[in-house]
Amino acid sequence: MDVDVLLFQIGAAVFAVTGVLAAARQNMDVMSFVIIGVVTAVGGGTLRDLILDQPLFWLEDVSYLYVASLAAAATFFFEKRFRAPLCVFLYLDAVATALFTVLAIEKTLRLGYTSGIAVLMGVITGIGGGIIRDLLTGQPTLIMRRELYMTPILLGGAAYAVLYAGAWLDASVAAWLTILLITALRFGAIRWDWSFPDWLTHRPLK
Amino acid sequence: MDVDVLLFQIGAAVFAVTGVLAAARQNMDVMSFVIIGVVTAVGGGTLRDLILDQPLFWLEDVSYLYVASLAAAATFFFEKRFRAPLCVFLYLDAVATALFTVLAIEKTLRLGYTSGIAVLMGVITGIGGGIIRDLLTGQPTLIMRRELYMTPILLGGAAYAVLYAGAWLDASVAAWLTILLITALRFGAIRWDWSFPDWLTHRPLK
Amino acid sequence: MDVDVLLFQIGAAVFAVTGVLAAARQNMDVMSFVIIGVVTAVGGGTLRDLILDQPLFWLEDVSYLYVASLAAAATFFFEKRFRAPLCVFLYLDAVATALFTVLAIEKTLRLGYTSGIAVLMGVITGIGGGIIRDLLTGQPTLIMRRELYMTPILLGGAAYAVLYAGAWLDASVAAWLTILLITALRFGAIRWDWSFPDWLTHRPLK
Repeated sequence: MDVDVLLFQIGAAVFAVTGVLAAARQNMDVMSFVIIGVVTAVGGGTLRDLILDQPLFWLEDVSYLYVASLAAAATFFFEKRFRAPLCVFLYLDAVATALFTVLAIEKTLRLGYTSGIAVLMGVITGIGGGIIRDLLTGQPTLIMRRELYMTPILLGGAAYAVLYAGAWLDASVAAWLTILLITALRFGAIRWDWSFPDWLTHRPLK
Repeated sequence: MDVDVLLFQIGAAVFAVTGVLAAARQNMDVMSFVIIGVVTAVGGGTLRDLILDQPLFWLEDVSYLYVASLAAAATFFFEKRFRAPLCVFLYLDAVATALFTVLAIEKTLRLGYTSGIAVLMGVITGIGGGIIRDLLTGQPTLIMRRELYMTPILLGGAAYAVLYAGAWLDASVAAWLTILLITALRFGAIRWDWSFPDWLTHRPLK
Repeated sequence: MDVDVLLFQIGAAVFAVTGVLAAARQNMDVMSFVIIGVVTAVGGGTLRDLILDQPLFWLEDVSYLYVASLAAAATFFFEKRFRAPLCVFLYLDAVATALFTVLAIEKTLRLGYTSGIAVLMGVITGIGGGIIRDLLTGQPTLIMRRELYMTPILLGGAAYAVLYAGAWLDASVAAWLTILLITALRFGAIRWDWSFPDWLTHRPLK
């Protein structure tokens, strides 16, 4: 896949919007919302770059920060004015997650790591921003929610690793198939509340 | 500004003291308080150095850790004995925040980054330690408080960037003016409870 | 001490098991438990390597991740089936903590840092994984518990630094004595609820 920078900046903006929406049950000022939006947008990629000891992507191209800040501020005023649920962004968030996951896997493979590490970096990039946002705003992290969030990323990443390793497909085709797969699994999880069956879920005794 | 190491060690001690005081509503032993004090004192600069891929400042000069540990332990015993509110430290914290913010901006500019990145590093250095302290002690982070904390740092940092870029002033004069500005804004926020007006604040529907 | 890789992989497995057990009061699916187990197992060493700007140990030898994942998944099914308290793992956790602490101190000293920094890296490696686990699962961090956890690591590390600096003993003997000392102090803290005396503990006024 040719890395389309515009596409990834749209992805960063989407993450900033969903970050603000996820935090909007809180009582905060616009400055805090902008910080939350930016952290959600760049947090996962930041963890990935720190782990791989690469220059942080937003130090290399600072426009990600400006795009995320603007998107977060716009969402603040829009949400304050219209109290719109904006639930379409849940679906856009799924697309952005898929994009960033595949970008992270490609970046990690290019650096010479194994596909196992690459899939793990995909998961960390996909969920890291949301986890830091939840910690900063005192919400239960998505580790503790039953909604399928990490599993679609892991399955999609594993599919990409298999397709890529087998060289059955052009890398670009494999990337787009993976994006489709992750997006489809997330859409299903959002729309039909997919979750793990009981035998794969732990319920503490009261 | 000539970096006065003594000044910054006093700043680290002040941060350690305010870290312990902020955590003093909790039931903890002296060891935990010392860790909280050290984390508050060096946490922001640690995040900055990790992001910029620089050697951590407290690995280069370990005395910061000892100064912060001693200040935290002394505060523990003083607070336990006298239950003094020590509110003067809120004001000293404002001065220390201003000092560390300007130090971080200068360091980032010297490494060749743009002034936008430098101001961001100033904010992260100024608030990072307090945020890690709040996470470790289970308090709402300052992202969620209405008190003006990040905004004075951001305004001061922006002012410094403008003064510095325009070369209107000697760098040292610009640095001290910035420290004065951030300190003054924080003093006002502490003394008169300054916060954002309603149209810049989000209140969730009940 | 010859670094016995098998020993450290057993240690990682033990940390993964205790991570899952500590989180088992929560309602989560198997995927979340595996993530919690892996984070508990490698979190402390990850913080250490980031601070020292070394390649992360689990990027160098990815088997740590697989061992921790398998141990976490096995614990999930075992705990779900038998609701066994598995309290023997509290004691194994003490041994694993001691092992990892000494490994971290040795690694830091080999890199040329002072013994003060080395002991600090030992503490961070020993408690880091548990603290990240507590943050992710919304539990009070061990900073806030009265149980002696950091102090045995600090005392053991200090003892190792003294033995090592004085060259009274072969490094390998000093390492094993330190492991014994930390393990013994933790066993005592678990078995007899050792904690700091009142004059070293802060109780907020109601």
